[in-house]
Amino acid sequence: MSLINLSIDCVVLGFDEDQKLKVLLIRKFVNEKNDFQFALPGDLLGLDEDLLSGGKRILKSLTSLEDIYLKQFYTFGNPDRTKQNKDQSWLNMYRKKPNERVITVGYIALVKMEDYTPQPSSFAIDAQWVELDKVSCDLAFDHNEILDKGIKYLRKELDHQLISNLLPSRFTLSQLQKLYEILLDEKLDKRNFRKNVSKDNLLVKTDEKQKGVAHKPAHLYTYKS
Amino acid sequence: MSLINLSIDCVVLGFDEDQKLKVLLIRKFVNEKNDFQFALPGDLLGLDEDLLSGGKRILKSLTSLEDIYLKQFYTFGNPDRTKQNKDQSWLNMYRKKPNERVITVGYIALVKMEDYTPQPSSFAIDAQWVELDKVSCDLAFDHNEILDKGIKYLRKELDHQLISNLLPSRFTLSQLQKLYEILLDEKLDKRNFRKNVSKDNLLVKTDEKQKGVAHKPAHLYTYKS
Repeated sequence: MSLINLSIDCVVLGFDEDQKLKVLLIRKFVNEKNDFQFALPGDLLGLDEDLLSGGKRILKSLTSLEDIYLKQFYTFGNPDRTKQNKDQSWLNMYRKKPNERVITVGYIALVKMEDYTPQPSSFAIDAQWVELDKVSCDLAFDHNEILDKGIKYLRKELDHQLISNLLPSRFTLSQLQKLYEILLDEKLDKRNFRKNVSKDNLLVKTDEKQKGVAHKPAHLYTYKS
Repeated sequence: MSLINLSIDCVVLGFDEDQKLKVLLIRKFVNEKNDFQFALPGDLLGLDEDLLSGGKRILKSLTSLEDIYLKQFYTFGNPDRTKQNKDQSWLNMYRKKPNERVITVGYIALVKMEDYTPQPSSFAIDAQWVELDKVSCDLAFDHNEILDKGIKYLRKELDHQLISNLLPSRFTLSQLQKLYEILLDEKLDKRNFRKNVSKDNLLVKTDEKQKGVAHKPAHLYTYKS
């Protein structure tokens, strides 16, 4: 017999052209004295629910965010991942059997922050965008590890399906480079960046140019369909 | 309440320099008339077992293979993945509650076939290497889908940790190219291949050259440590 609880945790990263990358965290009370804890939005999967639908339902139920492209990136199964003291109080309030094992599947999303306004509900008392380098606290369970693994996945993949919705339908190569610099958290050399983009052969140069700029307008590009 | 069975399925790919890529399949009886079915080696996770240890234990228990680098690649959670008619008979023989949902975590490995001799045990009556393009039958459960996803993962990643154990400690660029061609299942252009290898900057040219060859001996390379 190996019946196990299964949950979904969502690493939702928010992008804002002029800002740093942020992660969507919920805050939840861990006892009746209103002490709280931050966590990734996550909850148990329904008994007949598939993973992706479960992830979408859970994300919506805790933060109100919907219509988001979620991608599975890793499953976390340490038998002790919910056994730490810091988590026992919340588990005792919200789970019938707080000692049962929970394995969790991590999903990741990348969104334009301006398109979504998180609203907390269910056991989330707050849902907010937090700058990655300000996530210094202990999150619930193993959520610091899940967040780290999600960021590494994102930086390794830079999956076009994940990032294309961060860009307008037509964009300049400078906009694209800026996006990569924010996601990778490093400055890129302009010449090398353009050489690599042209080698990847995923973009089409359109006939259009930037409008309303003081400098020489740059060409606009779009992803090949 | 969302208690779910959790299993691990292993996509173990075997490589043999002169051959095609092969996958390790087990054969299992599905009824008392000795009708059988092929499947990836997989079984339920123990209640307190972590995912990777479980994968190693299960692989060993069904095929005798051990000391293998297994890497998690995807989790399969379709609620109907064990509900097809073709699987009911086996489930009725081997599971106390054949209707309970099972979510499975896929692990992948790449090995030199010559280093491992599979020996069936437990409910496996046979464990054998099968050429990928000869896997034309319906495997158990959703194992055809898991195998496809594993192959795609391998081809997308070509993870150096996964492939470096397929090579001797020193190898020629031609050996490396041949390995990539087998893994990717396509011919590669020699000049482009070498350009990309040198750009990746992961190899070191040693002072040694091939020995005992009739043609001009090629330089030997090794991975940077």
